[in-house]
Formats: sequence, structure tokens, C-alpha cells
Amino acid sequence: MSETTERTRIRRLPEKASTDRDDLDRVLDAGLVAHVTVMNHDVPLAIPVAYARRGDEVLFHGSTGSRLFRTLSEGAPTCLTVTLLDGLVVARSAFESSMHYRSAMLLGTASRISGDDELDALRTITEHLLPGRWQECRQPNPKERAATMTLSLPIEEWSLKLSDGDPDDEPADVTDETYGRIWAGVVPLREEFGAPRRSADCPDDISVPEYVRAWRR
Amino acid sequence: MSETTERTRIRRLPEKASTDRDDLDRVLDAGLVAHVTVMNHDVPLAIPVAYARRGDEVLFHGSTGSRLFRTLSEGAPTCLTVTLLDGLVVARSAFESSMHYRSAMLLGTASRISGDDELDALRTITEHLLPGRWQECRQPNPKERAATMTLSLPIEEWSLKLSDGDPDDEPADVTDETYGRIWAGVVPLREEFGAPRRSADCPDDISVPEYVRAWRR
Repeated sequence: MSETTERTRIRRLPEKASTDRDDLDRVLDAGLVAHVTVMNHDVPLAIPVAYARRGDEVLFHGSTGSRLFRTLSEGAPTCLTVTLLDGLVVARSAFESSMHYRSAMLLGTASRISGDDELDALRTITEHLLPGRWQECRQPNPKERAATMTLSLPIEEWSLKLSDGDPDDEPADVTDETYGRIWAGVVPLREEFGAPRRSADCPDDISVPEYVRAWRR
Repeated sequence: MSETTERTRIRRLPEKASTDRDDLDRVLDAGLVAHVTVMNHDVPLAIPVAYARRGDEVLFHGSTGSRLFRTLSEGAPTCLTVTLLDGLVVARSAFESSMHYRSAMLLGTASRISGDDELDALRTITEHLLPGRWQECRQPNPKERAATMTLSLPIEEWSLKLSDGDPDDEPADVTDETYGRIWAGVVPLREEFGAPRRSADCPDDISVPEYVRAWRR
């Protein structure tokens, strides 16, 4: 169900657009942070949030005390963007120099979820960020649940842009006496985890769990 | 000049707020991609852009053919957010599990720059992403200049949130028979460059330049 609309049709560099839902899911499932928009004092803000995909919706949470989250829960139109950076494109010209990226943009209105559905959503977000952790950690108590607002944005109207491949240099630059003799290519960029760092209040005899050691980006 | 206003005062987790301009500059100088907001058909969009800081302004560019960029250049209020992810916070409770991040949010209106000022801005953006490249690559020709719109957003009204340190677990969880015996800590996350990949049309005898080898995240 790729829902390209007048609002999501990609006009700039349309050759980089994808309408493949599997491509979209791969991007959403690979990201850790999304930027969500909401109007505030006549300025549209872009707010970073942790999120997770669950089937045909994207879930994210915040504080029940947050006015911006309340605005979203009341049906303010929003955009949720997930951008992954995959590399630097080193072209012969400054103009063609750019980045490898994957960027997903969802439009719609979010709605607040509650009860067991919210608990499952919180599990989904935790498991997306920290796979394996939910079963072991203390799950939210009533006070924490009351302080948390969980929103669901349906995956209905979206666009996706994927940029990869070699630099797209002008043929004249590739054969140019000067610029044809400078290096051109791509420098890949990826997120990597470092060694887990124990909390100061965590006893030394507790080792890093296998599920944490298994985390890879 | 930290300009905290009603619009940029941080209400959620205010202990993570910084009003130190040097902190702000460090975040802006470390990021590669910003998300910029602009209204489109009554929905505020968050659009990823390459950017660079130049003194007291943030520069970014797009296509002169882009309606969204034209809207911004006409003075539409905008927000530019740069978010860096530094790690996963593995707390005893799901509620306190979170991320280490640094997030800068600038509000204002952007203006289009031109002439030598724009050329310097393009150089600044290229050098921010690809340090050392500007002098070697082909600089923009008149046709490319005509296709490029470069915007400047002044660093005037902004907020900054920095999240680091150990998990902030409830004391009862730290001493709990069960949850006090699970590992807690932080798993650092960082962007790293992989080995440069030569473009298919780049001759084998051209080696990777020293300035490219020096790139580190």
C-alpha cells in the first residue's frame, strides 16, 4: 500500500524515490531516532523522538505533561522523518558532492493509545532500541504509565528517498585533464556500538548480558 | 549570546538543558545532517539537509526549483534541529531506559544569500562535510550556481539538550533483589567511516587523498 499523494510525491531527484513498502519498513526498522513536527507559537518544530514500527504504524512516546505531545494527540497534522546517513559522496565537482542517505517521511495525524495496547507499544519501542531487554528489566508501574503518553502514527501517506551509488559526475569532469585526475568515490559511514560501560552503581560481578553483546548496527 | 525565549525554554527534563553557546557550536559542528521544518499543504514537514555553521549562522542549500526552499527564502518561520546519538542507556527499568543524545534546535527565519557570500557559504558547507575537498574539486559553474539556493539561518533563538551519564534508576530498583541484579550501563554509539570506495570511473592509479584518509567522526 504505497500511498503517494500530491503531498508526498517527490519532485526533487525523483529517480531516488522509492514507493516500495518493504524499502520503507527497512528504513524505519533500521533507525533509532525520528524527527516529529508540531506547531508551537506559529513555528513548526522538529523534535527528536525514539520510535518503533509495529506493523502499519509508527509508535513514539513522550510525557503526558508535554504540551507538544498533547497537541499531537489532539490530531494536529504531523510529519515523522527518519534519516539514515550511509556515506559521503566525493564527486569531482562540488555540485555533485553529496551524501548517501535513506530518508522516510510519513504524514498524518497521531492518536494516543492506552491500556494493553499501550503496554505492547512500550514493549515494542524498548525492544526496538534494546532488543532482549524488556523481559529482564522492570516494566512500567502505574505511576510511570500515567506519566507516559504513547502515540501511534499510521503508515498511510509517505515518501521515501534512497541515495546510493557512485558520484554522478558530469562526463566532462570525468575526462577533464585536471578534475578527471582527482580521486572520486564514496566514503561509507555507519553507526557502531562501542564497548558497554557499566553503571557506577552496578556490581562488578554482574556481567554484560548476551543480548547486549549481540547488539549490532 | 544565549537567547532563551518562551519558545525555546526547555520544560521537559530541564536539567539536561544547556545555554552555553560553545556547547551549541560543538553540536552544530559535529553534525552532518539537520532537519529543517517548512509548512506544506497545512502539514509541517521535517526535511533532512546538509548544513554547516559559519560564525553566528547556519547555512544550508537546496534547489532553486524547490517550492519548499522558496517558501523558506520568503521568510516562513522555521526550526532547524541537529540531533546526535551518543549511546543507549540501559537502565533497570524500561521507564529510565533511554539514549545519550545531543540535540540543538534553532528557531527563526532563513534568508537567501547570493554572490561571493553564497560562494563562501558553499565552500563552508563542502568543507564541513568533506574537509580539504573544496580546493581540489571543481567549484560550481554559473549553471550550477543558478540551480542552487543557499539559505542562512541566524543563530539567535535556540535551545540545546544534552543527555549523558549513567542510567538514572530509582534507588529502589538499584537495591531490588531482582532488578538490582541485572546489568545496567551505557552502550556508546558512534558514527564511523569505512574504507573509501573508488568510483567505477576513477582510474586505479589515482590514490585516495591524504585529506580523505584523515576524515574521522
